[in-house]
Amino acid sequence: MGIITLTTDFGWQDGYVAAMKGVILSICPSAMLVDVTHDIPPQDAWRAAFVLHTAAQTFPPGTVHLAVVDPGVGTERRAVAVQTERAFFVAPDNGLLSFALPPGLTYTAVVLSNPAYHRKPVSDTFHGRDIFAPAAAYLHNGVPIGALGAPVPDLVRIAFPRPLAAAGEKITGEAIYIDRFGNVVSNIRAEDGIWDKFANLRVGRHKVGRFCRTYGEAAPGELIALIGSSGYLEVAQRDGSAAHRLDAKPGIAIQVAFKEPAGRPPRQ
Amino acid sequence: MGIITLTTDFGWQDGYVAAMKGVILSICPSAMLVDVTHDIPPQDAWRAAFVLHTAAQTFPPGTVHLAVVDPGVGTERRAVAVQTERAFFVAPDNGLLSFALPPGLTYTAVVLSNPAYHRKPVSDTFHGRDIFAPAAAYLHNGVPIGALGAPVPDLVRIAFPRPLAAAGEKITGEAIYIDRFGNVVSNIRAEDGIWDKFANLRVGRHKVGRFCRTYGEAAPGELIALIGSSGYLEVAQRDGSAAHRLDAKPGIAIQVAFKEPAGRPPRQ
Amino acid sequence: MGIITLTTDFGWQDGYVAAMKGVILSICPSAMLVDVTHDIPPQDAWRAAFVLHTAAQTFPPGTVHLAVVDPGVGTERRAVAVQTERAFFVAPDNGLLSFALPPGLTYTAVVLSNPAYHRKPVSDTFHGRDIFAPAAAYLHNGVPIGALGAPVPDLVRIAFPRPLAAAGEKITGEAIYIDRFGNVVSNIRAEDGIWDKFANLRVGRHKVGRFCRTYGEAAPGELIALIGSSGYLEVAQRDGSAAHRLDAKPGIAIQVAFKEPAGRPPRQ
Repeated sequence: MGIITLTTDFGWQDGYVAAMKGVILSICPSAMLVDVTHDIPPQDAWRAAFVLHTAAQTFPPGTVHLAVVDPGVGTERRAVAVQTERAFFVAPDNGLLSFALPPGLTYTAVVLSNPAYHRKPVSDTFHGRDIFAPAAAYLHNGVPIGALGAPVPDLVRIAFPRPLAAAGEKITGEAIYIDRFGNVVSNIRAEDGIWDKFANLRVGRHKVGRFCRTYGEAAPGELIALIGSSGYLEVAQRDGSAAHRLDAKPGIAIQVAFKEPAGRPPRQ
Repeated sequence: MGIITLTTDFGWQDGYVAAMKGVILSICPSAMLVDVTHDIPPQDAWRAAFVLHTAAQTFPPGTVHLAVVDPGVGTERRAVAVQTERAFFVAPDNGLLSFALPPGLTYTAVVLSNPAYHRKPVSDTFHGRDIFAPAAAYLHNGVPIGALGAPVPDLVRIAFPRPLAAAGEKITGEAIYIDRFGNVVSNIRAEDGIWDKFANLRVGRHKVGRFCRTYGEAAPGELIALIGSSGYLEVAQRDGSAAHRLDAKPGIAIQVAFKEPAGRPPRQ
Repeated sequence: MGIITLTTDFGWQDGYVAAMKGVILSICPSAMLVDVTHDIPPQDAWRAAFVLHTAAQTFPPGTVHLAVVDPGVGTERRAVAVQTERAFFVAPDNGLLSFALPPGLTYTAVVLSNPAYHRKPVSDTFHGRDIFAPAAAYLHNGVPIGALGAPVPDLVRIAFPRPLAAAGEKITGEAIYIDRFGNVVSNIRAEDGIWDKFANLRVGRHKVGRFCRTYGEAAPGELIALIGSSGYLEVAQRDGSAAHRLDAKPGIAIQVAFKEPAGRPPRQ
């Protein structure tokens, strides 16, 4: 009894998610289905890529991750399945797997071209139900990935913004994700900085002067910098939304300044 | 290990859905529970009927579909269970099964009158937990439908609006459903028209001139007509909400005009 | 195959809930996971306590209830596991179990201090994933609660407001919960009053004159008092939101007046 996770922008108010689950359970009745989220904003493949990545890391080996955020349904964009050493992914080839498949990771990818593994008839508008869901179910059942279609050598990637480090005293990154609590997640990883050297941080025109280990260390209403659960630098407000207070959206610049090295004489 | 699906207007923020699941799993611990949706607008049995229908079609034979949108809880409306050749349904008898049980389909229906299959005590306000959920669980366990109560010969039906075809050149239907993406779903089925003869479509005062096979064929922002995943004519906007742009709500008229037959001389 | 329920304020739009589920299923692959809700308003432990309680009552013996609404993550608040005769609970010790563990109930509680049952490394910001989820999974697997950490003699409690009864003719309570339908749930239990003696009820400046057994007995738009599904007095509006109409929020006073005793002569 393996696991199939689902990540979509279908929302919960329609019958679309359940229609996919019915297809899956018709093929593999004992699969354990786990919703990652269906509340990705319509067609926001970037956000889906980040959410999928943060969730997928904790699942046991062999899990099949099905992700459908598919503005290009019915066009020439490819539908793909991917096998890594640890997991399977089924998704449109539009960058949705950019975080889950970091550069350097070895994987096998195929295009879902074999009609024997499609639901019939294949609609023009709902490949989630008719192509992606069956592929996930057959992979769960042990069908070799090579049976689903022809190999594809490369996948579409969303460029992951890399923080800029300048002069050894500053790192400039950007916000890549806002979560439900209003935490502003940056693309600056813990290993990119030495946090006992943290001096301050700027988000737009706002300055954040304190680095904490936890939300609880902050005073009520205080803005702080901390390392979030995915290992990235976050800006948070205790008991409130940092994103709202800072008017921060994905893409806004985040600049971290460090203390002067101890051995250097202070400027005069 | 069979499947029980759940469709309600209970929302996710209270404990009501979980209370039903606890009752079900106390009776059949190995049931696989699949949420269709709990975000039906309060007491909108029509919308629930449509969502249930579109989702239920993909589930394997023997699935039990539990649907509770029940403005009449505690009044004389009947609580029923229905068995078709393919599935079971448990719901209040208020039209919720109108789409799932199309005219002509053979079924057996009973009223849930046998207290041996109720949770005790039965509250006056939460039959979902105390009457409907246990019935679904016992059907899953193989209790014959006839044990749950006395047969009922007929069920309440919401009249399904039928499109009007006039003079062979126009079909007038109406919007019956708006989905998360703002697609406006009509009651005009694919077989009602011959789509290579499509000339244009009117929703209220707006005219839609193009029929596409997929969303992706449309230009960004373009309004198009297409056949949606349930087989009905939809009006969609690429990268936006057609419902918002057209100010369309369920009930608004949708009129389709067809091209002149090829053999007929053009009007002069 | 036992059940683990989940109650959090994580919402559905991020990957946090799924990350917890991945951790759980890595430890106990056959657990049945049931979402109670993830839509608790951020950090509202009181609301979570009430929702958890109303849902947990229907689950079979041995169920593990995992609840994470944790404004104090990373501070000195304790993480605890609790075993009652009927169920297990895993939660921060911030009052979240106040309703589930009523005064007088016997239980065993431990602090989750044994690192052998933590996910490594333990982050500073996501104990739901790294401490609470593993504890729930190991309890499901049969690990004795005493292995998870040292016993704690007492738990933090949110004081449950008790209705005031004055002069035998009035009960004064307060609203403790507003549900999705706008029903205003009070802290006055069915046994606190004799409902055939109900005269009227006041919520703030509004008077409600009628006590009904069910929503369906009310006229469209009518405000009524009734006993809700959890056994508490509620104020409801048929086909509408009583909370909206009364501008009622948790904490607002609700006063119930009773009829004169039958044997007493009417006042002159």
